Amino acid sequence: MNPRLKEKIVVLAGGVGAAKLLKGLVKVTDPANIVVIVNVADDTSLHGLRICPDLDTVTYTLAGEINTETGWGLKNEGWKAMEMLNRYGGIDWFKLGDRDLGTHLFRTHRLLQGAPLSTVTAEIAASWKVDVTILPVSDDPINTFISTPDLGEIEFQDYFVRHQHNIEVTGVRFEGIDTALPGPDVLDALQYASGIIIAPSNPIVSIGPILAIPGITETLKARKDNVVAVSGIVNGKALKGPAARLLHELGHEISPVGVARIYSEIVGNFVIDNIDSHHISSIEKLGIACTATDTVMIDPIKSANLCSVLLPLCLSEAST
Amino acid sequence: MNPRLKEKIVVLAGGVGAAKLLKGLVKVTDPANIVVIVNVADDTSLHGLRICPDLDTVTYTLAGEINTETGWGLKNEGWKAMEMLNRYGGIDWFKLGDRDLGTHLFRTHRLLQGAPLSTVTAEIAASWKVDVTILPVSDDPINTFISTPDLGEIEFQDYFVRHQHNIEVTGVRFEGIDTALPGPDVLDALQYASGIIIAPSNPIVSIGPILAIPGITETLKARKDNVVAVSGIVNGKALKGPAARLLHELGHEISPVGVARIYSEIVGNFVIDNIDSHHISSIEKLGIACTATDTVMIDPIKSANLCSVLLPLCLSEAST
Repeated sequence: MNPRLKEKIVVLAGGVGAAKLLKGLVKVTDPANIVVIVNVADDTSLHGLRICPDLDTVTYTLAGEINTETGWGLKNEGWKAMEMLNRYGGIDWFKLGDRDLGTHLFRTHRLLQGAPLSTVTAEIAASWKVDVTILPVSDDPINTFISTPDLGEIEFQDYFVRHQHNIEVTGVRFEGIDTALPGPDVLDALQYASGIIIAPSNPIVSIGPILAIPGITETLKARKDNVVAVSGIVNGKALKGPAARLLHELGHEISPVGVARIYSEIVGNFVIDNIDSHHISSIEKLGIACTATDTVMIDPIKSANLCSVLLPLCLSEAST
Repeated sequence: MNPRLKEKIVVLAGGVGAAKLLKGLVKVTDPANIVVIVNVADDTSLHGLRICPDLDTVTYTLAGEINTETGWGLKNEGWKAMEMLNRYGGIDWFKLGDRDLGTHLFRTHRLLQGAPLSTVTAEIAASWKVDVTILPVSDDPINTFISTPDLGEIEFQDYFVRHQHNIEVTGVRFEGIDTALPGPDVLDALQYASGIIIAPSNPIVSIGPILAIPGITETLKARKDNVVAVSGIVNGKALKGPAARLLHELGHEISPVGVARIYSEIVGNFVIDNIDSHHISSIEKLGIACTATDTVMIDPIKSANLCSVLLPLCLSEAST
């Protein structure tokens, strides 16, 4: 194994929710001691460019370059390219800022040269002097398709951005997942971590594909006592995005219990919001230790406080 | 044939030199009566995007959006994407402005959708309300390679932009030219034109590939009396770009006579600068009528004056 990966705090991450958590985590843990394993199943190809929304949100956040108003994209952004796309009648629902385009141009060029996504991700992070290790969960392309009664099966970003996830969903399919390999260092990072945090990202479309890549769930099962997940469902709602509706439409309960059930094989610890503390006993019945705290990360201080609760929970048992 | 193409003034065009000519031509001819057939052999793929420098220079010029200081690219341009590429250590020698990127994004997306380059070119021109008909000489990709003693065979933009055409050349190869088809309407436009102007573009790498596409030289030969070319070599130098050095290194004379020889089978009329009038007899010996005038297009008025000389020359004989 890569000795740099020994005894790290590893975070399984989607986009915005995970980025908020990371903002706090770097306040209570040495960034060089953190590894983030990031979903790539919502990556897309548009205008010939490879776009990795979750990787970029995590990287831009750790670089201090995120647009804090939107939670995605870069600050000090320009929109000249989009204005031209509008003029030409091109695709205008997926907003690509001028600075952001620089990232996609670089990544696409490097991928076309044959560089793996993990290498390109590390190059981008290094240029921002990000000390956290950012690992795409896989170097293989995985494409999420969403089944809808009205539009048939559509691409994830079509569902998520174009339709603002405001349509009925009957199924989710991760194309390429069965043959995707965990990226370099991903399994080692999980196996040798001191503790593993599952960010309050969407359990279906952000954490779901991470867990579905062959080898990852098996590795997590063996580390169960050192895995803590945070519920992204608070008071019956998702703090952001379509998690609540997706959970319901795909047959899950819209509650921390519904999320805990999805993770029941791989987490030993679950953290829910104080407002949901009446769910503790239901979660404990799943064989998962449950802690209630303030999980709503309205600022980096709240995020850091949450991380201060999470760390002892995932570090509590001796590493396997 | 497409009746819209009957009895037009057709211009064979590279980039900057042709764009200057067109600025004048639209002052002395109804733009709706002009068809430009544009070189595509210097097109390139970079960062996953399809880039067509000559088409864009012609379109941006006719749209009144060209950066008049550089002669290429757009005015009111931004450079945020390039700043990011610099940060990442990406390719920074091919300057892609933020507005310009919008064009490449749109074109690449449409090409990936299966639209031919001619269709995309028309869509872009229409969005700028350009009345001149802009035809890529071919919808098929043609890639120019430059043989050099020092670097081996390199791509055209590598030679032209990265090395500022400041290296020795021993050969030019147009990959794909033998199987390239003339674009829709290209042969009809030539066959049914009232007059045909070969712009003072580079005879080797701009006009050369246009003439090398199967069918085009044959069509021009039959229209020879209605074809007029302008020398891009004035007083032993190219007004812009590597034409002089390329002519010399590839065994041609650096003079209007050298250019006229290249075009001798397809032009009935040749226009040179007053300063080169001592070459008239040599050109006439090639069987080409030769006229000297002021050919240096330092402003649109000079361009219009030149076009006023060109038009009667190519319209002088009855259409075949």
